Amino acid sequence: MQRKKNNESDPAGEGFIHNLAIDAVIFGFHDNQLKVLLMQYSKTGYVVLPGGFVKQDENLDDAAMRVATQRTGLTNIFLEQFHVFGDVARFDPEPFKAIMKANGANPEPQHWLLKRFISIGYYALVDFTKVTPTPDKLFDSCGWYDLDKLPALIQDHAQIIRTALTTLRNRLDDQLIGFNLLPAEFTMGNLQSLYETILGKPLLRPAFQRKMLAIGILQRLNKKYSGGAHKAPYLYKFISK
Amino acid sequence: MQRKKNNESDPAGEGFIHNLAIDAVIFGFHDNQLKVLLMQYSKTGYVVLPGGFVKQDENLDDAAMRVATQRTGLTNIFLEQFHVFGDVARFDPEPFKAIMKANGANPEPQHWLLKRFISIGYYALVDFTKVTPTPDKLFDSCGWYDLDKLPALIQDHAQIIRTALTTLRNRLDDQLIGFNLLPAEFTMGNLQSLYETILGKPLLRPAFQRKMLAIGILQRLNKKYSGGAHKAPYLYKFISK
Repeated sequence: MQRKKNNESDPAGEGFIHNLAIDAVIFGFHDNQLKVLLMQYSKTGYVVLPGGFVKQDENLDDAAMRVATQRTGLTNIFLEQFHVFGDVARFDPEPFKAIMKANGANPEPQHWLLKRFISIGYYALVDFTKVTPTPDKLFDSCGWYDLDKLPALIQDHAQIIRTALTTLRNRLDDQLIGFNLLPAEFTMGNLQSLYETILGKPLLRPAFQRKMLAIGILQRLNKKYSGGAHKAPYLYKFISK
Repeated sequence: MQRKKNNESDPAGEGFIHNLAIDAVIFGFHDNQLKVLLMQYSKTGYVVLPGGFVKQDENLDDAAMRVATQRTGLTNIFLEQFHVFGDVARFDPEPFKAIMKANGANPEPQHWLLKRFISIGYYALVDFTKVTPTPDKLFDSCGWYDLDKLPALIQDHAQIIRTALTTLRNRLDDQLIGFNLLPAEFTMGNLQSLYETILGKPLLRPAFQRKMLAIGILQRLNKKYSGGAHKAPYLYKFISK
């Protein structure tokens, strides 16, 4: 969750619901790589998930979409709630105080941006080549990080990413169509490669193919033209359940 | 969510996080019946899910457990977050104003109990014969309602129940052990009957048995002693995955 420049025009944060934040775990997939979008504050160097607050007159899901669009440039992201992080101990005001001070503010201890907040986690899975990572003036950078090489993250953001990844893996069969990560027609090999990347492990082809066909989300099309006839793989497309 | 008597000792609600509530969908199972716990306000007659606010210094999950314990008398409920309801349009202050007025209060429009709130849904599945439904002085009743005979509910509470039921059904294979609804040793028939009640439809025995054995959560024990030998069913117990 980022403490943002809303601060300037609305110092008491009256336009926002207090004690409540959104954190967006945006996974990026491409060419057998799975990454996550993170932002780094300038001056202090703290690394955080993209996040923000909910406006008083804004739907929760719209606030999450606003945050995700702002950081990716994408407007039609398939964004899902996955968990609310609400322990008292997860909040430490010190990093946020340091960030505000480094940017010229000198907040009172009871400033709304220094109060405990409960964070609603959303995740998305996008093709990272279609994203334009977009920081703002508080941030040095906004960019993709390998999941197995995460930097130190503020607060419980590493835990939020782990929980998001577990949920993504558990829901993959149901949500794959929504993520829109494959071309309209694809081979079983394309699909298996996507699963292997997201699950982080190799899968056995016969069992994978049996399972995917049993789920009932695939329609088999013609064979892919590849010059040689009998080794050509079938093409598939998604059908709604 | 209930507007409660906290009001009296803390009129500005300073001890609570504003704009945020918990709603608890407590499903009760027994003897092939599935019910839900609801409360009815005295004087106005509005029917609501058990609910409440989160204290400033309270973990979110602890607040949910406090609400559930308060209304059921049970202290070790397996309680799960399932969805956050955060549309602006879901909130209408009028019923709450009416409830407060019927109880002698005359709140200002900006009273904290009349502000929009975002509601975090939790659900549980308990044996309803073990529960002592407990209203308080604001409520005429707290009791069990059949899912197919729900009364008119305040706000979007009917939708919250539907979403909870869908989630319960989808997660049943993973969460059944936690719900602790069967005796330590049970037959496949006991288990199927529980599934059928929660899913609201009959299941075919061979396919059900195959699936349950494949999930890997059951250990087969001796046959159940029933006098006659060859028709006695096997007993099972749960094992951790």
